[in-house]
Amino acid sequence: MNTPIETQLIDGKAFAERMTQKVTEEVAELQKTTGITPGLAVILVGNDPASEVYVRNKTKQTHKVGMRSFMHLLPETTTQQELLSLIQRLNNDPDIHGILVQLPLPKHLVADPIIQAIRPEKDVDGLTAYNAGKLALGHMDGFIPCTPLGCLLLLQQEVPNLRGLNALVIGASNLMGKPMAQLLLNQGCTVTIAHIDTRNTAELAKQADIIIVATGCRELVKGSWIKKGAIIIDVGINRIISDDKKIKLVGDVAFQEALGIASKITPVPGGVGPITISCLLHNTLCATKKHLSI
Amino acid sequence: MNTPIETQLIDGKAFAERMTQKVTEEVAELQKTTGITPGLAVILVGNDPASEVYVRNKTKQTHKVGMRSFMHLLPETTTQQELLSLIQRLNNDPDIHGILVQLPLPKHLVADPIIQAIRPEKDVDGLTAYNAGKLALGHMDGFIPCTPLGCLLLLQQEVPNLRGLNALVIGASNLMGKPMAQLLLNQGCTVTIAHIDTRNTAELAKQADIIIVATGCRELVKGSWIKKGAIIIDVGINRIISDDKKIKLVGDVAFQEALGIASKITPVPGGVGPITISCLLHNTLCATKKHLSI
Repeated sequence: MNTPIETQLIDGKAFAERMTQKVTEEVAELQKTTGITPGLAVILVGNDPASEVYVRNKTKQTHKVGMRSFMHLLPETTTQQELLSLIQRLNNDPDIHGILVQLPLPKHLVADPIIQAIRPEKDVDGLTAYNAGKLALGHMDGFIPCTPLGCLLLLQQEVPNLRGLNALVIGASNLMGKPMAQLLLNQGCTVTIAHIDTRNTAELAKQADIIIVATGCRELVKGSWIKKGAIIIDVGINRIISDDKKIKLVGDVAFQEALGIASKITPVPGGVGPITISCLLHNTLCATKKHLSI
Repeated sequence: MNTPIETQLIDGKAFAERMTQKVTEEVAELQKTTGITPGLAVILVGNDPASEVYVRNKTKQTHKVGMRSFMHLLPETTTQQELLSLIQRLNNDPDIHGILVQLPLPKHLVADPIIQAIRPEKDVDGLTAYNAGKLALGHMDGFIPCTPLGCLLLLQQEVPNLRGLNALVIGASNLMGKPMAQLLLNQGCTVTIAHIDTRNTAELAKQADIIIVATGCRELVKGSWIKKGAIIIDVGINRIISDDKKIKLVGDVAFQEALGIASKITPVPGGVGPITISCLLHNTLCATKKHLSI
């Protein structure tokens, strides 16, 4: 009974483009009716090259949908107090509807007090206690972190009713795994969260209808871990050097092994990646509308 | 290999008494050093007999540890606005360090905006978005709902290091199941949350090292569901009429069946029940100390 099945690739890029298109239209409509342009402030401290790429992408996309982008590129030597003061200023700036601090911060800064200083109404990354609590209580009117929100939207496109499905979330970070588990629970999934201390991840995976993996361990999830017909959302982005000496991106799932077993899978790249920025723009639009009470 | 093992009863009553004793000593010390007496306000709307019993018990225990208790017994006809005004008054009252609204509220009142109106610093039940978010982010300096906190303390008494154990939480309420899952996750457990939509609860239970059940379905968890040596925390309190026509309390676990299979189990009554009030008093003491910044 081990006949391979056809595995459908979930096209995150096309989904993200549709979402971005919708945001673009809504931004134009908002400007027409209210004269207000949504504004997103992004703070980057130091010179981490990966973070610079992410931030540049965010800026580009923000402009593309017609929003205003406020970049704050701060030197590596920025102090905790300077960063807190900037956040206070942005909190009080009426042109800014969303504030994002690019993580990770340089080691001498303590990220959490900085994140928690963001006004919940401008916390488009959904990382303040207030927004995390909204999600934990099942209230969907707070801001949800962009990557798990994107994963949920992709999943819902494939399976409109998730109720009663067994979902395994591998990775338990505040940015991804924990809010993902909350989202799936709110949708009626039976949710298991596995992480670095989990002893039987493979066994848990074999029972899951849905596997969402975000660990940063390349190709952690093997073909033998996957239940036939399962849906897999691969959040991992790992850089490897391929046989022809080129840099190649691979996910947290052994993609080739999953083909023929999973019913649907997000490729890396082109799966979850593109969604994250679309969700950020969506959240910034929501923040603007909330600010205007519309 | 089905030799029965000796099942140890977890004595929640003794644990609660030790905890209450400790709170009593700390309250006395606090009064001596600062002149401040912790004050707990409890709001009960309407005449639900079970709620009246709970509230009376809370008042009695609050006095017993030397705290001040402020009872607000409001008529069934209380409006949303009246209740919100009372909460505002209590939020601003310096004699009150903790505020608790006894749930459920009468049907014409919407509980959530009322709960969310409580200042997080006085939310000793841990139900505001801010405190729920603190827990979701793994920050242990917020208020944790009393029943899951009590369950965790009981568990930790039995198994000081929970890291890597498979825990199943049955029931996904905001008061109990969801915060319980967060607490266990923060302790390094691999956590599964099952609920009304779960299709294979028995199967999940059989894999669990720890089962925590809070569903209100009497004797839901059968002996055949339990892995040999598992630890069981039974949060259920169900009233039944026994053969001799007396009212008897039973839990969500088929207790007699669990004996000989589970390594440890909380009895009903005398297990989780007594802990809840001790945790409430503990939270109120913490709220007072935080208010005084000590």
